[in-house]
Amino acid sequence: MIELYTAATPNGWKASVALEEMGLEYTVKPVNLLKGEQKTSEFLAMNPNGRIPVIVDKSEGDHVVFESGAIMIYLAEKTGMFLPNDNKGRSKVLQWLMFQMGGVGPMMGQANVFYRYLEEKIPVAIDRYQNEVRRLFEVLDGHLANNEYLVDDYSIADMANWCWVRTYEWSGASIDGLDNLTRWKNSIEARPAARKGVEVPNKIDKEALLKGAKNVVTR
Amino acid sequence: MIELYTAATPNGWKASVALEEMGLEYTVKPVNLLKGEQKTSEFLAMNPNGRIPVIVDKSEGDHVVFESGAIMIYLAEKTGMFLPNDNKGRSKVLQWLMFQMGGVGPMMGQANVFYRYLEEKIPVAIDRYQNEVRRLFEVLDGHLANNEYLVDDYSIADMANWCWVRTYEWSGASIDGLDNLTRWKNSIEARPAARKGVEVPNKIDKEALLKGAKNVVTR
Repeated sequence: MIELYTAATPNGWKASVALEEMGLEYTVKPVNLLKGEQKTSEFLAMNPNGRIPVIVDKSEGDHVVFESGAIMIYLAEKTGMFLPNDNKGRSKVLQWLMFQMGGVGPMMGQANVFYRYLEEKIPVAIDRYQNEVRRLFEVLDGHLANNEYLVDDYSIADMANWCWVRTYEWSGASIDGLDNLTRWKNSIEARPAARKGVEVPNKIDKEALLKGAKNVVTR
Repeated sequence: MIELYTAATPNGWKASVALEEMGLEYTVKPVNLLKGEQKTSEFLAMNPNGRIPVIVDKSEGDHVVFESGAIMIYLAEKTGMFLPNDNKGRSKVLQWLMFQMGGVGPMMGQANVFYRYLEEKIPVAIDRYQNEVRRLFEVLDGHLANNEYLVDDYSIADMANWCWVRTYEWSGASIDGLDNLTRWKNSIEARPAARKGVEVPNKIDKEALLKGAKNVVTR
């Protein structure tokens, strides 16, 4: 059994999508970020960085894993799923996972801060991050022109990038004209496990969210 | 034999420090970022994201690895060095490597952009990133209070974080009062291989760089 400490964010979904795709049993422990539950001493004892998601593997002596990318690798290695066994295939999946960890995630995160959260609107910063997100989307789109998934079969690299890319409207970024990226995004969206994973710990009404409604949790 | 396409940046040093620490033979292929050599079609064929570092492992059928974090994992697995074999130790090292990939690296990178590179000085953005860098440094410092290295023995997680932390002055961030972080930083600086790695592809005169000199390459 695995405990998942999470919230409805792209990094949180990376963990729940992986758990769902791998068919692992897990208990959801919702962390209320607005109440600062990720900064309590109990939480910081698990992740000193005070960030979700965190998993505790009860079947492995309560082994704790923080950082969404490290969680995905841990679960893939635990189950032998969604990460190739051969050195080269494995290395390719880790490259595209790192592309998300160091690129897509942080840049969309910064776009969200300057476009959505900060009251003061700073065009230089908004443009910088939205342009960088679009550039990263174009890199993905170009690669997906000749590849159904990022590396051979569907892998944790696809899950990781998809959890972020699917929130492009929240970042104010566009996927217009990126037909390969759109095709790939839709094909992952069609997977029941992926769809279930992004409804953890609760289902969000996207249209209401984008319109600025306060109560967007629908379940 | 390994070919390393790199430039004198923290991400570039992550690869060269790992190569030096592992005692691997490699050929340096300097990439002139100011001339845009990372955006040529030859380079994009190796890394569609147009970023250094990239390695080509000639002994493995020219296997290409981009993303500095993926390079470190690939080299550690190739040599069996600086990444524990047991699942839990390995998972812990990957967690702190991801902390650098998704946190320290991107946040110091953004601090550099707003503090150093952009002509327009935007206090909100400079403060945001310098504060976040300081917060991440404090997380490292707290963890290092009870740990000589990030996870048991010196590992790729230490190398990755150190390559960024050592450039704190460039980001305008402070390590004042962070005695554990400073002790850890100094102990890595004392390693001949690490010191050699950060002089690839050329040695930089730090004092001249911080004073804004144009010619800071000393070898």
